[in-house]
Amino acid sequence: METIGRHIIAELWECDFDKLNDMDFIERTFVDAALKSGAEVREVAFHKFAPQGVSGVVIISESHLTIHSFPEHGYASIDVYTCGDLDPTIAAGYIADALNAKTREVMELPRGMGPVAAKSLQTV
Amino acid sequence: METIGRHIIAELWECDFDKLNDMDFIERTFVDAALKSGAEVREVAFHKFAPQGVSGVVIISESHLTIHSFPEHGYASIDVYTCGDLDPTIAAGYIADALNAKTREVMELPRGMGPVAAKSLQTV
Repeated sequence: METIGRHIIAELWECDFDKLNDMDFIERTFVDAALKSGAEVREVAFHKFAPQGVSGVVIISESHLTIHSFPEHGYASIDVYTCGDLDPTIAAGYIADALNAKTREVMELPRGMGPVAAKSLQTV
Repeated sequence: METIGRHIIAELWECDFDKLNDMDFIERTFVDAALKSGAEVREVAFHKFAPQGVSGVVIISESHLTIHSFPEHGYASIDVYTCGDLDPTIAAGYIADALNAKTREVMELPRGMGPVAAKSLQTV
Protein backbone atom coordinates (compact mmCIF):
# COMPACT_ATOMS: atom_id res chain seq x y z
CA MET A 1 0.00 0.00 0.00
CA GLU A 2 1.42 3.37 -1.02
CA THR A 3 1.52 6.09 1.63
CA ILE A 4 0.79 9.01 -0.69
CA GLY A 5 -2.60 10.61 -0.19
CA ARG A 6 -4.64 13.74 -0.84
CA HIS A 7 -6.36 15.46 2.09
CA ILE A 8 -9.10 17.99 1.40
CA ILE A 9 -9.98 20.43 4.18
CA ALA A 10 -13.33 22.07 3.41
CA GLU A 11 -14.79 24.84 5.54
CA LEU A 12 -18.45 25.08 4.57
CA TRP A 13 -20.47 28.11 5.67
CA GLU A 14 -24.03 29.28 5.14
CA CYS A 15 -25.28 25.69 5.00
CA ASP A 16 -28.90 24.68 5.70
CA PHE A 17 -29.59 24.48 9.44
CA ASP A 18 -31.91 21.49 9.10
CA LYS A 19 -29.47 19.45 7.05
CA LEU A 20 -26.60 20.19 9.44
CA ASN A 21 -28.72 18.90 12.30
CA ASP A 22 -30.02 15.73 10.62
CA MET A 23 -27.69 12.88 11.54
CA ASP A 24 -29.36 10.31 9.28
CA PHE A 25 -29.15 12.67 6.30
CA ILE A 26 -25.48 13.44 6.98
CA GLU A 27 -24.56 9.78 7.44
CA ARG A 28 -26.30 8.84 4.16
CA THR A 29 -24.65 11.77 2.38
CA PHE A 30 -21.19 10.76 3.60
CA VAL A 31 -21.58 7.11 2.66
CA ASP A 32 -22.88 8.15 -0.78
CA ALA A 33 -20.00 10.60 -1.18
CA ALA A 34 -17.51 7.83 -0.41
CA LEU A 35 -19.15 5.43 -2.85
CA LYS A 36 -19.35 8.04 -5.62
CA SER A 37 -15.60 8.52 -5.24
CA GLY A 38 -15.08 4.81 -5.78
CA ALA A 39 -14.07 4.21 -2.17
CA GLU A 40 -14.69 1.05 -0.17
CA VAL A 41 -16.56 1.79 3.09
CA ARG A 42 -15.16 -0.01 6.15
CA GLU A 43 -16.56 1.68 9.29
CA VAL A 44 -19.29 4.27 9.86
CA ALA A 45 -19.65 6.13 13.17
CA PHE A 46 -21.82 9.21 13.73
CA HIS A 47 -22.87 11.03 16.86
CA LYS A 48 -25.68 13.53 17.48
CA PHE A 49 -25.08 16.23 20.05
CA ALA A 50 -27.66 18.00 22.21
CA PRO A 51 -29.08 20.49 21.61
CA GLN A 52 -27.68 20.37 18.07
CA GLY A 53 -24.75 19.33 15.90
CA VAL A 54 -23.45 16.13 14.36
CA SER A 55 -19.98 14.60 14.30
CA GLY A 56 -19.07 11.55 12.30
CA VAL A 57 -16.66 9.58 10.23
CA VAL A 58 -16.65 7.13 7.38
CA ILE A 59 -13.49 5.04 7.41
CA ILE A 60 -12.73 3.87 3.88
CA SER A 61 -10.05 1.48 2.68
CA GLU A 62 -8.42 4.59 1.20
CA SER A 63 -8.48 6.71 4.44
CA HIS A 64 -11.47 8.71 5.77
CA LEU A 65 -14.19 11.35 5.56
CA THR A 66 -15.19 13.35 8.65
CA ILE A 67 -17.67 16.05 9.57
CA HIS A 68 -18.37 18.30 12.53
CA SER A 69 -21.50 20.38 12.04
CA PHE A 70 -22.52 23.53 13.92
CA PRO A 71 -26.09 24.18 12.73
CA GLU A 72 -26.43 27.36 14.76
CA HIS A 73 -23.51 28.84 12.81
CA GLY A 74 -24.43 27.30 9.43
CA TYR A 75 -20.97 25.74 9.53
CA ALA A 76 -19.67 22.29 8.65
CA SER A 77 -16.04 21.33 9.06
CA ILE A 78 -15.22 18.63 6.51
CA ASP A 79 -12.19 16.43 5.84
CA VAL A 80 -11.91 14.07 2.89
CA TYR A 81 -8.66 12.15 2.84
CA THR A 82 -7.97 9.56 0.13
CA CYS A 83 -5.03 7.39 -0.87
CA GLY A 84 -4.49 5.68 -4.19
CA ASP A 85 -6.08 6.89 -7.40
CA LEU A 86 -9.25 8.31 -5.81
CA ASP A 87 -10.10 11.98 -6.27
CA PRO A 88 -11.20 13.49 -2.92
CA THR A 89 -12.66 16.56 -4.61
CA ILE A 90 -15.54 14.42 -5.89
CA ALA A 91 -16.73 13.59 -2.37
CA ALA A 92 -16.01 17.08 -1.03
CA GLY A 93 -18.04 18.71 -3.80
CA TYR A 94 -20.89 16.23 -3.38
CA ILE A 95 -21.07 16.95 0.36
CA ALA A 96 -20.91 20.74 -0.09
CA ASP A 97 -23.75 20.57 -2.61
CA ALA A 98 -25.83 18.30 -0.37
CA LEU A 99 -25.52 20.73 2.55
CA ASN A 100 -26.29 23.73 0.29
CA ALA A 101 -23.07 25.43 1.36
CA LYS A 102 -23.08 28.95 -0.07
CA THR A 103 -19.53 29.77 1.05
CA ARG A 104 -16.81 27.17 0.61
CA GLU A 105 -13.16 27.41 1.56
CA VAL A 106 -11.24 24.40 0.33
CA MET A 107 -7.60 23.50 0.58
CA GLU A 108 -5.71 20.35 -0.33
CA LEU A 109 -2.79 18.94 1.65
CA PRO A 110 -0.48 16.23 0.35
CA ARG A 111 -0.02 13.39 2.83
CA GLY A 112 2.50 10.59 3.15
CA MET A 113 5.09 12.11 0.82
CA GLY A 114 7.96 10.72 2.87
CA PRO A 115 10.22 12.25 5.51
CA VAL A 116 12.15 14.12 2.81
CA ALA A 117 11.87 17.62 4.20
CA ALA A 118 12.85 16.67 7.72
CA LYS A 119 15.77 14.57 6.51
CA SER A 120 17.11 17.24 4.20
CA LEU A 121 16.96 19.77 7.02
CA GLN A 122 19.01 17.43 9.18
CA THR A 123 21.70 16.96 6.51
CA VAL A 124 22.04 20.60 5.37
CA MET B 1 -20.71 25.75 20.69
CA GLU B 2 -17.91 27.81 19.18
CA THR B 3 -16.70 26.81 15.72
CA ILE B 4 -13.04 27.67 16.28
CA GLY B 5 -10.72 24.67 16.42
CA ARG B 6 -7.11 23.59 16.14
CA HIS B 7 -6.22 20.79 13.72
CA ILE B 8 -2.86 19.04 14.04
CA ILE B 9 -1.59 17.11 11.02
CA ALA B 10 1.25 14.80 12.09
CA GLU B 11 3.24 12.74 9.63
CA LEU B 12 5.08 10.15 11.71
CA TRP B 13 7.90 8.16 10.11
CA GLU B 14 10.30 5.49 11.34
CA CYS B 15 7.74 4.16 13.79
CA ASP B 16 7.83 0.62 15.21
CA PHE B 17 6.40 -1.90 12.75
CA ASP B 18 4.77 -4.02 15.45
CA LYS B 19 3.02 -1.07 17.09
CA LEU B 20 1.73 0.23 13.75
CA ASN B 21 0.21 -3.17 13.09
CA ASP B 22 -1.38 -3.74 16.52
CA MET B 23 -4.97 -2.50 16.36
CA ASP B 24 -5.69 -3.01 20.06
CA PHE B 25 -2.57 -1.07 21.03
CA ILE B 26 -3.44 1.78 18.65
CA GLU B 27 -7.04 1.96 19.82
CA ARG B 28 -5.95 2.06 23.46
CA THR B 29 -3.30 4.68 22.67
CA PHE B 30 -5.82 6.91 20.89
CA VAL B 31 -8.42 6.70 23.64
CA ASP B 32 -5.72 7.45 26.22
CA ALA B 33 -4.45 10.37 24.11
CA ALA B 34 -7.96 11.83 23.97
CA LEU B 35 -8.47 11.44 27.72
CA LYS B 36 -5.06 12.94 28.54
CA SER B 37 -6.09 15.99 26.52
CA GLY B 38 -9.20 16.35 28.63
CA ALA B 39 -11.50 15.29 25.79
CA GLU B 40 -14.79 13.43 26.17
CA VAL B 41 -14.83 10.24 24.05
CA ARG B 42 -18.05 9.68 22.08
CA GLU B 43 -17.40 7.04 19.39
CA VAL B 44 -14.50 4.67 18.71
CA ALA B 45 -14.09 2.84 15.38
CA PHE B 46 -10.97 1.00 14.25
CA HIS B 47 -10.30 -1.32 11.35
CA LYS B 48 -7.45 -3.79 10.72
CA PHE B 49 -6.39 -4.32 7.14
CA ALA B 50 -4.87 -7.46 5.62
CA PRO B 51 -2.02 -8.10 5.34
CA GLN B 52 -1.18 -5.10 7.54
CA GLY B 53 -2.20 -1.61 8.56
CA VAL B 54 -4.77 -0.02 10.86
CA SER B 55 -7.22 2.82 10.31
CA GLY B 56 -9.33 4.32 13.01
CA VAL B 57 -11.00 7.24 14.65
CA VAL B 58 -11.95 8.49 18.07
CA ILE B 59 -14.82 10.96 17.87
CA ILE B 60 -14.67 13.29 20.84
CA SER B 61 -17.12 15.97 21.91
CA GLU B 62 -14.45 18.41 20.79
CA SER B 63 -13.91 16.92 17.25
CA HIS B 64 -11.70 13.88 16.42
CA LEU B 65 -8.46 11.92 16.31
CA THR B 66 -7.64 9.68 13.33
CA ILE B 67 -4.87 7.35 12.24
CA HIS B 68 -3.90 5.45 9.11
CA SER B 69 -0.86 3.25 9.65
CA PHE B 70 1.40 1.73 7.01
CA PRO B 71 3.64 -0.65 9.00
CA GLU B 72 5.68 -1.67 5.95
CA HIS B 73 6.72 1.98 5.51
CA GLY B 74 7.06 2.78 9.25
CA TYR B 75 4.51 5.52 8.60
CA ALA B 76 1.48 6.74 10.53
CA SER B 77 -0.72 9.53 9.25
CA ILE B 78 -2.29 11.28 12.26
CA ASP B 79 -4.92 14.00 12.68
CA VAL B 80 -5.85 15.52 16.02
CA TYR B 81 -8.57 18.12 15.75
CA THR B 82 -9.93 19.84 18.85
CA CYS B 83 -12.37 22.65 19.56
CA GLY B 84 -12.69 24.65 22.75
CA ASP B 85 -9.85 25.04 25.19
CA LEU B 86 -8.19 21.67 24.53
CA ASP B 87 -4.60 21.54 23.33
CA PRO B 88 -4.28 19.04 20.44
CA THR B 89 -0.49 18.95 20.73
CA ILE B 90 -0.84 16.95 23.97
CA ALA B 91 -2.55 14.04 22.19
CA ALA B 92 -0.35 14.31 19.09
CA GLY B 93 2.82 14.16 21.17
CA TYR B 94 1.51 11.27 23.26
CA ILE B 95 0.69 9.27 20.11
CA ALA B 96 4.05 10.01 18.45
CA ASP B 97 5.88 8.87 21.59
CA ALA B 98 3.75 5.72 21.88
CA LEU B 99 4.55 4.72 18.29
CA ASN B 100 8.27 5.53 18.78
CA ALA B 101 8.20 7.89 15.81
CA LYS B 102 11.79 8.94 15.09
CA THR B 103 10.85 11.48 12.40
CA ARG B 104 7.88 13.78 13.00
CA GLU B 105 6.47 16.43 10.70
CA VAL B 106 3.76 18.40 12.41
CA MET B 107 1.66 21.30 11.22
CA GLU B 108 -1.31 23.06 12.78
CA LEU B 109 -4.29 24.40 10.83
CA PRO B 110 -6.86 26.77 12.28
CA ARG B 111 -10.43 25.60 11.68
CA GLY B 112 -13.80 27.32 11.87
CA MET B 113 -12.44 30.87 11.82
CA GLY B 114 -15.43 32.11 9.83
CA PRO B 115 -15.93 32.86 6.15
CA VAL B 116 -13.94 36.07 6.53
CA ALA B 117 -11.34 35.49 3.84
CA ALA B 118 -13.84 34.43 1.22
CA LYS B 119 -16.15 37.34 2.02
CA SER B 120 -13.39 39.93 1.94
CA LEU B 121 -12.25 38.62 -1.43
CA GLN B 122 -15.75 39.06 -2.76
CA THR B 123 -16.00 42.65 -1.55
CA VAL B 124 -12.54 43.87 -2.66
